[in-house]
Amino acid sequence: MADHVQSLARGLAVIRAFSAVSPALTLSDVARATGLTRAAARRLLLTLTDLGYVRNDGRLFSLTPRVLELGYAYLSSLSLPEVAAPHLERLAADVHESASVAVLDGEDVVYVARVATARIMRVTISIGTRFPAYCTSMGRVLLAALPAAALDAYLTRARLRPLTARTITQPPALHAELDLVRAQGWAIVDQELEEGLRSLAVPIRDRSGTTVAAVNVSTHASRMTLAQARRDLLPRLQATATHIEADLTPS
Amino acid sequence: MADHVQSLARGLAVIRAFSAVSPALTLSDVARATGLTRAAARRLLLTLTDLGYVRNDGRLFSLTPRVLELGYAYLSSLSLPEVAAPHLERLAADVHESASVAVLDGEDVVYVARVATARIMRVTISIGTRFPAYCTSMGRVLLAALPAAALDAYLTRARLRPLTARTITQPPALHAELDLVRAQGWAIVDQELEEGLRSLAVPIRDRSGTTVAAVNVSTHASRMTLAQARRDLLPRLQATATHIEADLTPS
Repeated sequence: MADHVQSLARGLAVIRAFSAVSPALTLSDVARATGLTRAAARRLLLTLTDLGYVRNDGRLFSLTPRVLELGYAYLSSLSLPEVAAPHLERLAADVHESASVAVLDGEDVVYVARVATARIMRVTISIGTRFPAYCTSMGRVLLAALPAAALDAYLTRARLRPLTARTITQPPALHAELDLVRAQGWAIVDQELEEGLRSLAVPIRDRSGTTVAAVNVSTHASRMTLAQARRDLLPRLQATATHIEADLTPS
Repeated sequence: MADHVQSLARGLAVIRAFSAVSPALTLSDVARATGLTRAAARRLLLTLTDLGYVRNDGRLFSLTPRVLELGYAYLSSLSLPEVAAPHLERLAADVHESASVAVLDGEDVVYVARVATARIMRVTISIGTRFPAYCTSMGRVLLAALPAAALDAYLTRARLRPLTARTITQPPALHAELDLVRAQGWAIVDQELEEGLRSLAVPIRDRSGTTVAAVNVSTHASRMTLAQARRDLLPRLQATATHIEADLTPS
């Protein structure tokens, strides 16, 4: 498209080429990862180096902490993480489990606030971590709140992969589960994202009643039955959501 | 410079134009904040919208959570936050104070891991938050570890502004303080960044002995004297640094 600034798109792709698996890359690595020519990759890397986002140690390029500024622009533009933080801390200390807030972005949930108490998951979750919405408790709360047309479009296009033997992978079954989540106002997901991981989420609504985020508590399946989670965790989680909502919309 | 890709630099400036104070911006706002023409700002905003980093609600543009992916590329390329997290959690639970890890980027410290227990500061600190190095405990630990020439260059160019009445603002006095920090292996900063905020930091070194980060505990001045901080917090902080160092360099 005429208005598309190709070198901006390419430069952002260069930033995303770096990861835990490949924290330091040669020029050839970057060219291969992004599909760019070496000449194009070189110009973008040198520009990012000039701007302080990339460091060059001989043959190897790596990102600098300045890159965090870009995500920080988003986080600081959102009052939600700041408002939610003390409430998540209280909840996590109270129930001795990790608590998080996420928003929906396309087909994923994205963590915007988190207080971790125990390491349950194989991957460490930090701000910005994404998981597919269909198999997470916060994702189900957020999908259930979509307008009907948007939810239908999601169910048509989403690839529901079985991440464990329990993952719901049939669109009609997911649709029915989301109807239940909407009706009851909360979601429990039992080991559908990862074996051993059980999580419970409720919506965070703005003053108009629109769901803007979800808050959850996650626990190891061995620590709590589903019935206990519902009895012990759900009321505290609902209270936390109510407190966050009150702070989000000062009267 | 010939190899500088101007539209990449400008696109990143557009992302940085959004903040807590201005989370939603019109095209004119973005043009004004970045010094770009409206036509140039419009092309960059449309490109960022195409790529999913910016959302457009009528006249107003705002960032989407996808922007976090850019900082996440850096965080996930760094093993430090993941390695440090469980140790920071233990330390914060043990001393009932907030604990953080930061690295030096130019003249600032940048937070890369944090466990908050109480809200002491006026601003909420999250991953990516920057503070001037000269008046923070982690900054002093990191500055003290610079090679002599780099430290001299820093002291020549840094603007040492008095953020409180206690801030050290004279380069020779800061130099002397950094010599002390280097000799004793830790830094205490008492209300030089903000009234009421007291913080204690020690270095995190890699296997070669190079300081790669700093870890700190911060407390309110009313909760602990300097002597108590040194006696009660310092040994625990040093133990935490030792544990992080051991996990960073598996044998």
